[in-house]
Amino acid sequence: MGIPRANSVAEASADSVTGADLHLDLANRRGRADLVNALHESIRTGRLTPGTRLPSSRQLAKDLGIARNTVADAFGQLVAEGWLTARQGSGTVVADRILPRSEVPKPHPTPETQRFRYDLTPGSPDVSTFPRSEWLAAARRALPAAPNDAFGYGDPRGRVELRENLADYLARARGVRADPDRIVICSGYVQALNLLTDVLRLQGAQTMSVEEFGYDLHWDVIRSRGVEPKPVPVDEYGVRADLLEGRAALLTPAHQMPTGVPLAPDRRTKAVEWARETDAILIEDDYDGEFRYDRQPVGALQALDPERVVYTGTASKSLAPALRLAWMVLPEHLMDPVLEVKRTTDLLTATLDQLVLAEFIASGHYDRHVRRTRQHYRRRRDHLVELLAVRAPGVTVAGISAGLHVLLDVPGEAADMVARASRQGLLIASLDRYRFTPDPAARQALIVGYGTPPDHSYNGALDLLCQVLAV
Amino acid sequence: MGIPRANSVAEASADSVTGADLHLDLANRRGRADLVNALHESIRTGRLTPGTRLPSSRQLAKDLGIARNTVADAFGQLVAEGWLTARQGSGTVVADRILPRSEVPKPHPTPETQRFRYDLTPGSPDVSTFPRSEWLAAARRALPAAPNDAFGYGDPRGRVELRENLADYLARARGVRADPDRIVICSGYVQALNLLTDVLRLQGAQTMSVEEFGYDLHWDVIRSRGVEPKPVPVDEYGVRADLLEGRAALLTPAHQMPTGVPLAPDRRTKAVEWARETDAILIEDDYDGEFRYDRQPVGALQALDPERVVYTGTASKSLAPALRLAWMVLPEHLMDPVLEVKRTTDLLTATLDQLVLAEFIASGHYDRHVRRTRQHYRRRRDHLVELLAVRAPGVTVAGISAGLHVLLDVPGEAADMVARASRQGLLIASLDRYRFTPDPAARQALIVGYGTPPDHSYNGALDLLCQVLAV
Repeated sequence: MGIPRANSVAEASADSVTGADLHLDLANRRGRADLVNALHESIRTGRLTPGTRLPSSRQLAKDLGIARNTVADAFGQLVAEGWLTARQGSGTVVADRILPRSEVPKPHPTPETQRFRYDLTPGSPDVSTFPRSEWLAAARRALPAAPNDAFGYGDPRGRVELRENLADYLARARGVRADPDRIVICSGYVQALNLLTDVLRLQGAQTMSVEEFGYDLHWDVIRSRGVEPKPVPVDEYGVRADLLEGRAALLTPAHQMPTGVPLAPDRRTKAVEWARETDAILIEDDYDGEFRYDRQPVGALQALDPERVVYTGTASKSLAPALRLAWMVLPEHLMDPVLEVKRTTDLLTATLDQLVLAEFIASGHYDRHVRRTRQHYRRRRDHLVELLAVRAPGVTVAGISAGLHVLLDVPGEAADMVARASRQGLLIASLDRYRFTPDPAARQALIVGYGTPPDHSYNGALDLLCQVLAV
Repeated sequence: MGIPRANSVAEASADSVTGADLHLDLANRRGRADLVNALHESIRTGRLTPGTRLPSSRQLAKDLGIARNTVADAFGQLVAEGWLTARQGSGTVVADRILPRSEVPKPHPTPETQRFRYDLTPGSPDVSTFPRSEWLAAARRALPAAPNDAFGYGDPRGRVELRENLADYLARARGVRADPDRIVICSGYVQALNLLTDVLRLQGAQTMSVEEFGYDLHWDVIRSRGVEPKPVPVDEYGVRADLLEGRAALLTPAHQMPTGVPLAPDRRTKAVEWARETDAILIEDDYDGEFRYDRQPVGALQALDPERVVYTGTASKSLAPALRLAWMVLPEHLMDPVLEVKRTTDLLTATLDQLVLAEFIASGHYDRHVRRTRQHYRRRRDHLVELLAVRAPGVTVAGISAGLHVLLDVPGEAADMVARASRQGLLIASLDRYRFTPDPAARQALIVGYGTPPDHSYNGALDLLCQVLAV
């Protein structure tokens, strides 16, 4: 193999050094760990070269004014780690396996720093609304009360306390037919989609229908699992259910992302029929089902056929993305396959915040928080709509009845407006940004997320938006 | 396609019913949501069959003694959801898309209930030691102090507060060369291995070396990502570094799992040389590096060559598996590929407990907790070793200098002892259980984890173990 024998030492070139020669940077710390670190550093930086013979532990202890046992222990550790080699008769020498100082590692670039003063892209709630003290109070109730096994390797579906409270909540608030035994808690919606796609591929799926408008992240998740997403047209009644294909379809029935239309009743039944007749699965992404303002709530598609529709929900919009808590309500036949994939993905989802969320729901704080933030976002939406009517009368606003974003049909080139906004420090996105196959000449529209900015910058963001739209 | 037109109604068979006929189970709840739920339930259970014509909203309101608007709203929602169909002239009828009551879903079987009084298998710490009140106190300091963006979609590497504190800790406690910019926080070690294997496969890897003893879960993770694990023999110096193959090797250098031997110095240098010469990666699983009792600590292999060794550590043994917090220290060239895979896996790891752990480390509570539990486990180990010397003199104990388990060479058939223990309510595992290719005739040994039981059952577990070993 041409690899030199381990532990051979370049004894021919061995220099012996004294304690003083080592120039060890021990400052005032003289424990074993300090000496080990100082020797590591000297060897790494090349100050101590391979083959260098160290003083005896007795001598070095004397030179450095520390206990001999400390030095002997440090030498022992460095030998065990492969930094030094101890040979009867030849003393302790720096092993020749260790490279001299490698290039100083370049720090990984930090994620693009926020170049924008204002962010009106959709997808994030106003994270300043996170109810920190109520959450901490729920944690103070939930953690001491939890059984010991809540801190161990637990049920891969997630904590039963959360699944039971979620089943109640989802039935009540979203009309989901939810049995706690059929709920799987996931590490965010991305993981839910990842697990489902993995299972579908293992069952032979090669393609999955997706709405022609949506998030490229989701399409990337599907592709990363070896399945090809196929775009299906979306019109004013939602996705064209008559054009679904593949083994599954990913849908946003309550509020199409990002066009904002709810899936029409006949499209709902047609989609379910398609799934039944072709043995396919519908994945219902109920990403902002909590936030509906003007009209009666539109219940979950899942209730039409729980054996054909996977319901997915998330705490990312209602509480905070950083919780990374999402849930699936699964058909019976998908439980075991999903749990098997979950096992080799991350075993189970972190449990402590599950306990806190269960308590948060059970105590009524979740409903209260949703009501409060719903009013908060509704006020923002109303403000936006009123302002646009006055300052940008050529703009048509759509998709206002729910969610955290609206669609603006604009009387000019959407791409130009995005660029102009960008130059003024405002991040907005065109509808085209969310189109599966970009087509800059198609419908000229912007997607404006009014959830993201904190309160203190919302008015400034809207003002800039109106300037951009009015030009 | 043979699919009947959506919204067609079986009008020929339509029966008209009165409010009383509906037998709606409204109890004392008479809001819109209550009526919607009651109608959902009646349609699901088949009490209201497809084509059934409902009373007018005026009539039903009168029959039920509730406001007409409430009924109209409920009808509107059910039509929007596809449960009912409203047609000019034919009133409101139950849509014929809805299946009658599907079979009552069978609840998914709960995970095997604990049939054992005592569990002495390795892999879990004593979860009763989780420092609940100190953790809550750290949360009370960390959460209010966090910036708003800590609750949003953040850095895919994890919170900078945690990465900085970990870099210090890992350098100090494990000799890791850790730059906060090279640390990626993962959702448990299983995810770390999952992400790394995904990256290696995308880079062309087909096989990965693994130690011939280990966890089948880890081998399953590697297989699930499309890479074939190849077992490499382990002897009293650790893995046979001269036999590594493939694009990567998964190693437990500090304390081979489960045989307990540390990887010998010349094997360490040989493994690093192999990785350099074949452009391979070593994955260092430092799963219980915190727990070393008798001997000097053995620092991380990673320090020998941070561009060839991925260091992985976890809070699962030192704090609790339920946290699902692990970390990788990555070579520069793996940062971008790992983060790209992380993005489509779960975007980022849940953040709140990262903030708490950062505070827990910074405040010195982590070190204190590790010291305290190390003494706890050391006492347990001493007790086990002393007891076995008296009550099972034919047994040889190995791997006692570190970790949360020991290896017992037994003077009989290990499989018989496992079965005997099982009949008496004690769960233990044979060494063979952790062998890549099971060979019941090979070394007769048991792996005994002394970390798992809570204090109150530890003596009972040991007593039963001694009985089983003494027969």
